[in-house]
Amino acid sequence: MTDHTVVVVVTSRNDVPADMVVRHLGGGGYTARLHRIDPADVDSGYVRIKADLTAGACRFTLSDPYRTTHSEQIRSVWWRKPTTTTSSEGHAQLEGLLRTLGNVRWVSHPDRIAAAAHKPGQLLTAHWAGLRVPAVHLPASVDDAHAFADAHPVAGAVAKTWAIRGPVAWVTPQWRERVAEGPVVLQERVDKEYDVRVTAVGDLLFAASVHVPDGVTDWRIMQEQAEYRRIDVPPETAQAMRTYLRWQGLVYGAFDFAVDRDGVWWFLECNPNGQCAFVELKTGLPIARALASALSATSEVRCAA
Amino acid sequence: MTDHTVVVVVTSRNDVPADMVVRHLGGGGYTARLHRIDPADVDSGYVRIKADLTAGACRFTLSDPYRTTHSEQIRSVWWRKPTTTTSSEGHAQLEGLLRTLGNVRWVSHPDRIAAAAHKPGQLLTAHWAGLRVPAVHLPASVDDAHAFADAHPVAGAVAKTWAIRGPVAWVTPQWRERVAEGPVVLQERVDKEYDVRVTAVGDLLFAASVHVPDGVTDWRIMQEQAEYRRIDVPPETAQAMRTYLRWQGLVYGAFDFAVDRDGVWWFLECNPNGQCAFVELKTGLPIARALASALSATSEVRCAA
Repeated sequence: MTDHTVVVVVTSRNDVPADMVVRHLGGGGYTARLHRIDPADVDSGYVRIKADLTAGACRFTLSDPYRTTHSEQIRSVWWRKPTTTTSSEGHAQLEGLLRTLGNVRWVSHPDRIAAAAHKPGQLLTAHWAGLRVPAVHLPASVDDAHAFADAHPVAGAVAKTWAIRGPVAWVTPQWRERVAEGPVVLQERVDKEYDVRVTAVGDLLFAASVHVPDGVTDWRIMQEQAEYRRIDVPPETAQAMRTYLRWQGLVYGAFDFAVDRDGVWWFLECNPNGQCAFVELKTGLPIARALASALSATSEVRCAA
Repeated sequence: MTDHTVVVVVTSRNDVPADMVVRHLGGGGYTARLHRIDPADVDSGYVRIKADLTAGACRFTLSDPYRTTHSEQIRSVWWRKPTTTTSSEGHAQLEGLLRTLGNVRWVSHPDRIAAAAHKPGQLLTAHWAGLRVPAVHLPASVDDAHAFADAHPVAGAVAKTWAIRGPVAWVTPQWRERVAEGPVVLQERVDKEYDVRVTAVGDLLFAASVHVPDGVTDWRIMQEQAEYRRIDVPPETAQAMRTYLRWQGLVYGAFDFAVDRDGVWWFLECNPNGQCAFVELKTGLPIARALASALSATSEVRCAA
């Protein structure tokens, strides 16, 4: 009962990164056993939770027709991408119970994921960790927006939003309308040579440069067609990224950088729960294996890059 | 610009507790000025945000046709009940920017509110803080449920949910169906004399007993018709509640207790952002004034009850 060998993966049924990690954990070489769970299956009754909260102790069992896990067996929890929210009873029960576990590794803890998702905090943390960060401006008027663009006459500005994942747009003459439409975020444009996605798992950094045709501001709109190459992270950038993750309390992060014509890496954002499957599929970088190791490791995840 | 006198209240337009606190802050005796803001008004363009994030610093201005607040002026933030979520751009901008403020009092910090909302953690924290907590059981089958009920033959059990606020029900013969329907939470029933709602603001505790007709298990279904009386909190219970709030990192909490025929206070839950207006309207307990003081105070909120 106290073998402490189960890795719990909380996610939806169709989640490619989870599939890839699960495949690794299923292959030999790991002492950990896997229990994948979708909170929606608790709501439907397919997964049953039995729990006792008495006298300041919490013990529970998660079971479906194929597997049973006792709370004492859980070594780590990968809080991936459940489609449910805390308004689902199954989600509330599962998250609430898992949060009571002591001595368990989270990749990453849901509190840290939620806090690290806020963009202003990302930009400040990145700066103070030692990364180069473009200036960001939220305009209250068209005049404000013009003033920001005038202050960056060479490369100009890009427009984006923080909440909804829309493509980043190079600010064009139509931008007056865009600003007038509602809240927008303007960012100093990096005159970039190429983009970089670095997937961090613990202290391991998996970096790929991303190449798209000139004139494409946001490579993510053509994620499938882009060309990816494995690259090295400059040592001082790698050090700053590890500092960033430590300050944010994250074990995982998907960093986006733009690299300019002088080779300077500009931090754009760090998604605390970003996609990583496409990077591995395109480059062969062993991200899923690193996640499997981080989840099944018995010691702290702290490895050299 | 650095007078540090503005209280920011983030909530929806129709929020009675906010109205009551705002009325106090508007009356004399407070040095603080109020800025109430609904994130939906940022989306609509009624509230404009201007912000600069450059070189590791964040400065911003919130303005509508009637008032303007600079980030340096903000003394405290009451994170009440915005109806928007982080998928609203206005909400993401406002919350993201407010979170970058240093040296600001939150009532309470959104991270702490979110973490303290989970019921299993509430029950364990309450126990270890010194409160009496009824046993809770999540049954995986009808047999499990019967076993729990059999273990509490005198007072029986109640059924509830953690995610959706539904009424708590005394477990009746129909409960087999209820258990079969999906995830449910069973709780040792307290054979209660009356209920208690304690609203905590900092170290101040405002307690009211709640009286409903015999046979009503959950007084909240008849919140308007119930009878309320001001009462004192037993000293050891008060001490345990303050310990609870400190461990959860909360400045505010709405505690529910059931008091049994021996006078024992049983902790049921603590809502980190619960309603308080009806308690004040029914009893005259000066909760809104305490909130106004907590928000406008220049020193730590730490007062004797």
